[in-house]
Amino acid sequence: MDERRAVVLVSGGLDSATVLAIARRDGFAPYALSFRYGQRHAAELAAAERVARAVGAAKHVVAEIDLRLFGGSALTADIPVPKDRAADEMAHGIPVTYVPARNTIFLSFALAWAETLGTGDIFIGVNALDYSGYPDCRPEYVSAFERMANLATKGGVEGTLPVTIHAPLLTMTKARIVKTGTALGVDYSLTVSCYDASPEGEACGRCDSCVLRARGFREAGLPDPTRYRTAG
Amino acid sequence: MDERRAVVLVSGGLDSATVLAIARRDGFAPYALSFRYGQRHAAELAAAERVARAVGAAKHVVAEIDLRLFGGSALTADIPVPKDRAADEMAHGIPVTYVPARNTIFLSFALAWAETLGTGDIFIGVNALDYSGYPDCRPEYVSAFERMANLATKGGVEGTLPVTIHAPLLTMTKARIVKTGTALGVDYSLTVSCYDASPEGEACGRCDSCVLRARGFREAGLPDPTRYRTAG
Repeated sequence: MDERRAVVLVSGGLDSATVLAIARRDGFAPYALSFRYGQRHAAELAAAERVARAVGAAKHVVAEIDLRLFGGSALTADIPVPKDRAADEMAHGIPVTYVPARNTIFLSFALAWAETLGTGDIFIGVNALDYSGYPDCRPEYVSAFERMANLATKGGVEGTLPVTIHAPLLTMTKARIVKTGTALGVDYSLTVSCYDASPEGEACGRCDSCVLRARGFREAGLPDPTRYRTAG
Repeated sequence: MDERRAVVLVSGGLDSATVLAIARRDGFAPYALSFRYGQRHAAELAAAERVARAVGAAKHVVAEIDLRLFGGSALTADIPVPKDRAADEMAHGIPVTYVPARNTIFLSFALAWAETLGTGDIFIGVNALDYSGYPDCRPEYVSAFERMANLATKGGVEGTLPVTIHAPLLTMTKARIVKTGTALGVDYSLTVSCYDASPEGEACGRCDSCVLRARGFREAGLPDPTRYRTAG
């Protein structure tokens, strides 16, 4: 085994597609991990599959977890996804699209798989700048998870497989993420970021995620390949 | 709502039954959370149901997660459960019954549910003395998880719902756990601790978990109500 393995969390969106390409560039054999978690936007999973194949993941696994069991978010429960919010509105408070403990659950599964694969390297596409105000997307959260993970696992405790949570997008603007991925050959037309996409993966163009994504392409001076729904 | 809510991880074993009774004693309305995770010992779940009912949990939820997806443990994969190990043998190294990142995954789900229920209180029956050498049963792990959780959630970050991981058994001997639970009226005949129980919940008497449990009753000077298989 020449290549080092890494577990990469892949949602099918723009950020995680970029992370997958970064992991590959950094010499890792990426093991892509996605979740079917009762999300509204199941079109994401088809996108995750396409992205994992396009970037050349060593393997792609979809874990089934039912977060609807607990409810509490517009992404899993019957609460409307907010639309047409201004950037300064997104910057304040935590929106209803926040899924309680989602990244913690995702990283925990990644940790289990990483240990089984014999690696401590985990990649996640969290971003603390152009994000939607979620607490589990901040640098202090990522560090705290990494510290905890090194106390949780056999490899971390014995020092044979120290856990590293790679969050290469953490301090990038959306424009810089788009530029980085484009330079690495990521085909963003394969990705779906919309919180309220159609079953075919067409974006609404109006939720926080769509607004941030569109601005990213605009500010990067790159064409936006997103497929939008024709009528709202 | 007079009672404070708490999420209590309930496996159906001796430890978590005791924790459930402690949470009740401490004035919490317990919300019991169990997992169907591809474990060999599914008799645990029937026990969890009995225990939650007997102790008076406000609700009992079983989350389905398939850890067999990743393999890597005698409790989920096709590796034999070790039997007849001496106590000093158990004290060294991490056995094959270790499930990678299991407590991290369980606590992450508990965190999601807690936030949805509007509480930060989570109980877990980990124990750092009479345990099987798992890294995620130690005090430093529990503290690190708590710290991470307070950075992960809306309630933790905003300070409205600080997360507390209660691990009341952490430094208790098995004998002391048994005495505490007995004083609180726990009926241990309802519980199943065995790593290799029959479908009816009869214990093998020879795995690490059975050995530690039997010693607990013996050292506590209490009758052992465990139902053992008649032939091995």
